[in-house]
Amino acid sequence: MLTSAAPPSAPAAITLAVDCMGGDHGVRVTLAACRAFLERHADASLLLVGAPAALQALNHPRARIVPASEVVGMDDPIEIALRKKKDSSMRVAIQQVKDGAAQAAVSAGNTGALMAIARYLLKTLDGIDRPAIAPQMPNSKGGATTVLDLGANVDCDAEDLLQFAVLGSALVSALTGNDSPTVGLLNIGEEAIKGSEVIKKAGQLLKIAGEAGDLNFYGNVEGNDIFKGTTDIVVCDGFVGNVALKATEGVATMIVDFLRQEYSRGIFSKIAAIISYPVLKSLKNRLDHRRYNGAALLGLRGLVFKSHGSADEVAFGHALDRAYDAARNNLLERVRARIAHAAPLLARQEQAAPVDAAAIHI
Amino acid sequence: MLTSAAPPSAPAAITLAVDCMGGDHGVRVTLAACRAFLERHADASLLLVGAPAALQALNHPRARIVPASEVVGMDDPIEIALRKKKDSSMRVAIQQVKDGAAQAAVSAGNTGALMAIARYLLKTLDGIDRPAIAPQMPNSKGGATTVLDLGANVDCDAEDLLQFAVLGSALVSALTGNDSPTVGLLNIGEEAIKGSEVIKKAGQLLKIAGEAGDLNFYGNVEGNDIFKGTTDIVVCDGFVGNVALKATEGVATMIVDFLRQEYSRGIFSKIAAIISYPVLKSLKNRLDHRRYNGAALLGLRGLVFKSHGSADEVAFGHALDRAYDAARNNLLERVRARIAHAAPLLARQEQAAPVDAAAIHI
Repeated sequence: MLTSAAPPSAPAAITLAVDCMGGDHGVRVTLAACRAFLERHADASLLLVGAPAALQALNHPRARIVPASEVVGMDDPIEIALRKKKDSSMRVAIQQVKDGAAQAAVSAGNTGALMAIARYLLKTLDGIDRPAIAPQMPNSKGGATTVLDLGANVDCDAEDLLQFAVLGSALVSALTGNDSPTVGLLNIGEEAIKGSEVIKKAGQLLKIAGEAGDLNFYGNVEGNDIFKGTTDIVVCDGFVGNVALKATEGVATMIVDFLRQEYSRGIFSKIAAIISYPVLKSLKNRLDHRRYNGAALLGLRGLVFKSHGSADEVAFGHALDRAYDAARNNLLERVRARIAHAAPLLARQEQAAPVDAAAIHI
Repeated sequence: MLTSAAPPSAPAAITLAVDCMGGDHGVRVTLAACRAFLERHADASLLLVGAPAALQALNHPRARIVPASEVVGMDDPIEIALRKKKDSSMRVAIQQVKDGAAQAAVSAGNTGALMAIARYLLKTLDGIDRPAIAPQMPNSKGGATTVLDLGANVDCDAEDLLQFAVLGSALVSALTGNDSPTVGLLNIGEEAIKGSEVIKKAGQLLKIAGEAGDLNFYGNVEGNDIFKGTTDIVVCDGFVGNVALKATEGVATMIVDFLRQEYSRGIFSKIAAIISYPVLKSLKNRLDHRRYNGAALLGLRGLVFKSHGSADEVAFGHALDRAYDAARNNLLERVRARIAHAAPLLARQEQAAPVDAAAIHI
């Protein structure tokens, strides 16, 4: 990660707008994470968005309160969040990005509402029909695999998957400095003949994009390749991505629970557990989803990062860091440049295929 | 598992046809597993299908060789397997089921070819458009969750998912004796409003089927519920199921590799590893995919079980046991009875929705 801290005397270069009211824990977590973030990054300022009374606990020269009178609930329907709560902390935070007051917004609120509000306020970039959510997952190489889309778009066509590949390439290049990250297309077999009609067509589009130098297409990958780290980026529709993410969380939880049970079964196992403590701690750290918290909403005319709703202070801090890194490394410009490079291919597809009727239009 | 061994003097009651040439290891694995199987089940006979010269190594009073001169390769295209290799061990084994010489066939060969040949020779049951593959995955409750479909059908409609739910219910009731196993619909959220159009419609159909007593519908489940064991059966299309299966294999492999690395890192960890040996062995056993080997091909007019291609003797033995249990517990009759019960609903859907053009027709 290209985090570079400027000396304390440098002027504030990066400003993030933080929805301090969102998430399961609200200000208790967000304010603590904001305070630690300001200590880590001397060149950063924060706009703390929410109820002023709740935000006064964080008094810092590089933090400023931006009032918002409403909060989007974790279960609020998208329509309510978008049309009824026009002064929500989530919306006001994104408005700061639109107005140029902040380079990126961060929220731990309701994903659907965040995506809808971000899309409504910021609009998608030219050439992009549907924004994507791109989280990172740990892999066997000790790095992270960026998977998109994860939940924002359930009915995707081949053109959407091509757009996701372009967006993901820009994100990974901004976060890692690798200008030619590899892209895999999630499929059920390595052979090009496998998969649904949408996947087959997406494979053809990605191959053309690779040949045109728009991205570095590796080919088809399978579910296990996410964790092998076969490619830097794995592209899939939001339904498949969501199921894969949750299934792997499920199996990891099962394994950790199983180890805990086994190690507490009798005195011999307990001794083994004590001696194994460093190993198990290291495993826990390796699998710690908090280290991977902070998924980019890509394809918008502004940067928005989504934290897990249940994030604690450490996890929310990672989401803030990711937004900071993306802003410092000009993610938005990289996305624009990638889209411009791929414009002929994206435009050709636009003519060939009418806009998907299933896309959300707000 | 309802495995019941009859006394040695009992007449052979269950006959399985085994494709001895299929899989990555061929007769080396299949014959050894067949021998052990015959020792475990005194009421079982086997038809050993393949090249007679290769099969003579297993000389047993309850085993008989059925010659087949060809072998379907693991990479053979479906067309070749189906149309050119008419004397393949895979096809001859399934033919034994069709002819009534065996109650079930077992093969570790190419999944696509097995499904295509089984479908061509046996035909689907009335009311079923597309057969499904239903493997089991270990869950936190110490049991197994049956997931279908896993790879046979990539473009499914809501009616297919309803059929999978009916088929899966029959399988689980045959294998566990539980006549009312719970069915979950794999989705990206528990709320009924989430998911693709196909999933939303499938949710409505499953609800109606549950109310009609055709199955025990729990509602929507998410990827992690497979491993929590929230429901006995999880229904999804073959693309999503395949990705979920492989992604979880990937994360489990990553964790086990990580533990191995950590435990071999320096003398202290090595001591911890020795003391932890029983726990790690127990974990390995818990995650051992061999114990869950043997996926049913459901919806056909005969029983066919698919073993993993890389199965070793233990794993192939589990697939044989599963086929044996299914035959003993009248899986085919249970499937027919469930379909008959659900016939009014299945027929209504058939009228409402024309057969999916994307379905494989042979």
